Amino acid sequence: MVKKVLKFGGTSVGSIERIQHVAKIIEKEHKNGNQLIVVVSAMSGKTNELLNLSKNISDSFDKRELDVLLSSGEQVTSALLAGALINLKIEAKSYLNWQIPILTEGENTNARIVNIHTDKINKFLEKKGVAIIPGFQGISKNGNITTIGRGGSDASAVAIAKIFNTDFCEIYTDVDGVFSTDPNKIPIAKKIEKISYDEMLELSSLGAKVMQSSAVQTAMIYNIPLEVKSTFTDRDGTKIFGQESIDYTKSVTGVAYSKDDAKITLIGVEDKPGVAANIFEPLNKSQINVDMVIQNISSDKRTTDVTFTIKRDDLQKTKEIFEKNDNINFEKITYNDKVAKLSIVGAGMVTTPGVTYKMFRALADEKINILAISTSEIKLSVIIDEENILNAVKKLHTVFDLD
Amino acid sequence: MVKKVLKFGGTSVGSIERIQHVAKIIEKEHKNGNQLIVVVSAMSGKTNELLNLSKNISDSFDKRELDVLLSSGEQVTSALLAGALINLKIEAKSYLNWQIPILTEGENTNARIVNIHTDKINKFLEKKGVAIIPGFQGISKNGNITTIGRGGSDASAVAIAKIFNTDFCEIYTDVDGVFSTDPNKIPIAKKIEKISYDEMLELSSLGAKVMQSSAVQTAMIYNIPLEVKSTFTDRDGTKIFGQESIDYTKSVTGVAYSKDDAKITLIGVEDKPGVAANIFEPLNKSQINVDMVIQNISSDKRTTDVTFTIKRDDLQKTKEIFEKNDNINFEKITYNDKVAKLSIVGAGMVTTPGVTYKMFRALADEKINILAISTSEIKLSVIIDEENILNAVKKLHTVFDLD
Repeated sequence: MVKKVLKFGGTSVGSIERIQHVAKIIEKEHKNGNQLIVVVSAMSGKTNELLNLSKNISDSFDKRELDVLLSSGEQVTSALLAGALINLKIEAKSYLNWQIPILTEGENTNARIVNIHTDKINKFLEKKGVAIIPGFQGISKNGNITTIGRGGSDASAVAIAKIFNTDFCEIYTDVDGVFSTDPNKIPIAKKIEKISYDEMLELSSLGAKVMQSSAVQTAMIYNIPLEVKSTFTDRDGTKIFGQESIDYTKSVTGVAYSKDDAKITLIGVEDKPGVAANIFEPLNKSQINVDMVIQNISSDKRTTDVTFTIKRDDLQKTKEIFEKNDNINFEKITYNDKVAKLSIVGAGMVTTPGVTYKMFRALADEKINILAISTSEIKLSVIIDEENILNAVKKLHTVFDLD
Repeated sequence: MVKKVLKFGGTSVGSIERIQHVAKIIEKEHKNGNQLIVVVSAMSGKTNELLNLSKNISDSFDKRELDVLLSSGEQVTSALLAGALINLKIEAKSYLNWQIPILTEGENTNARIVNIHTDKINKFLEKKGVAIIPGFQGISKNGNITTIGRGGSDASAVAIAKIFNTDFCEIYTDVDGVFSTDPNKIPIAKKIEKISYDEMLELSSLGAKVMQSSAVQTAMIYNIPLEVKSTFTDRDGTKIFGQESIDYTKSVTGVAYSKDDAKITLIGVEDKPGVAANIFEPLNKSQINVDMVIQNISSDKRTTDVTFTIKRDDLQKTKEIFEKNDNINFEKITYNDKVAKLSIVGAGMVTTPGVTYKMFRALADEKINILAISTSEIKLSVIIDEENILNAVKKLHTVFDLD
């Protein structure tokens, strides 16, 4: 017997038929004698529907009331799933967050889980009951309903796995697991069997939207074994562990890319302390997220060039900042919004010599020009022209034996 | 300054535009300096939508989970209305039933409100806050969500008015008030300005579905002044008081009718003690509701005839009962499912001589045959052929000066 958290996302519970299918998955796990806590999202489309209702009243709809509104979505799924299980003669019960309670801190629409009372549910699990908990929400110490941000049901599942000290946390979704690259665009993409938390985080931040990043982070900190798997097939998913539990045979685990970047270069920036701070301070103030930053080593000249990338959506705002700001001295500014970011990710990279060279060689063979480079311990990212991106992804996928 | 409960039904909050319109009504009441507790229903159609989801899983969907499911409907309306008021710069707050709490007894889907904690909300009202409460629900002493039956938001409003000791309880709906007869079928129907609780109850039970009967009963017991009025016009509604507050100038307040009845006559029933019990026991067991019962005084013969009316939907089941049951001896049984019930209601009837005669005379003038008669202190009902019903209603409406 093991104790598990099973989390089902919005598409997994998107209709009555799907909820009944999820009930069958739970029934099977229950027959295996497992203790089960099930965390559910709102039915797909529901949260947006509720959000739109609030926006039709006001774009600055009161946040306390927004949380009361949105939390109803997962409440509905919880009741329907509990009812479907009871219909299969399984003792099941929905536990709303105030009934447990799940306590949060922080402001409405952006709270975080700080404590969960376990007694009631543990007693129910011991009597072979299946507890159904609406994800994405909690209550504040004042007794207000709170929510923990979009995609927050993953965070709920991991927090529950941690506090209930479960053996596993399984994230059921509409894809088979984590892939070596985007399977929708690159058909040779392969499902990854095992991956480390760090790699998962890098892949998530690079656009593999399988799991919410902060949930992966929490799982990493508390070493909670995760598995991402499909609700709609019987196949094994992707297991996510600490690096020490993974036997690396490959240096590179996955190839990720994003196509919504823009590159900006300030040419002839005065090369003295404090200049970088001057450049990025106004961007920070305007909540523009800077991704890669590259500054060339200054030559004997008194100036240098600074290149950085941002989301393409922020380009107009960024232009305005540099055109208006007199604190930053530079000779010239160039923009390129036809760029894409290409990354290889792998916890084995650091111990495998030549990965960097191999990537650059492969791109050179395809006559793809590298516009900027950034590295971390388990990731190597380059900026290239957008038109070459799919070609480059395929090439790297092959070169690093991921096909 | 007065303290009021305002209750808005499903059609009154059926869209964002309507919720914003309701917010304006509340704004006006708030500007008049009134302390306001607002009770809301689910947006129209919502409860049926949720109910259908549960029925798609099972017709015997678990009742505890059904209440968790259904209660989300009023929760959504409460949050949207509170948000709309805040947007108008009015301090408003949704109070879910567990936050107050509103305590209920009795089983899920059919609970009744037994207590409401008033401190939190009274403090909020004193600070000019508008409290929004989802109707139709509460929590049990075990902390389960409960609901109090269809149309239960009226009962919530009246219970809140009683326990918060408010001066008024206003029921906003999609009609102008209570009418002297059905305004959709009989255009000469007139809105009644004032009506007593008893009359309202008789009219409700006879098909005027303006307010839930048990809510009217509670208001009567605790003498809570009600007003039924339209959300969509500025006109005064119908005020509902105790009889002592009403100055009767008319003997008859309204004419009601229903067309879903069936009449059954058992001819030649043995006339001895216990026979009536034998007849109605199996109907009661099968949950068939018997409305009117008429037994003729037995002549010197040893047998009598028993006539009663039921809902037409129950006719088939009733036939089967009498065909199978050997405990009941009778010579012959006749059915008539083409009948309608016609009633005049008025608290002034008891003190006005000749009302009964006037009704029978009017029907006779129209050559309408009376098939059965039943009377109470404030009501006189007859069964007639269905085809004559609208003609009969019009005639009585005129005869009793209601046009």
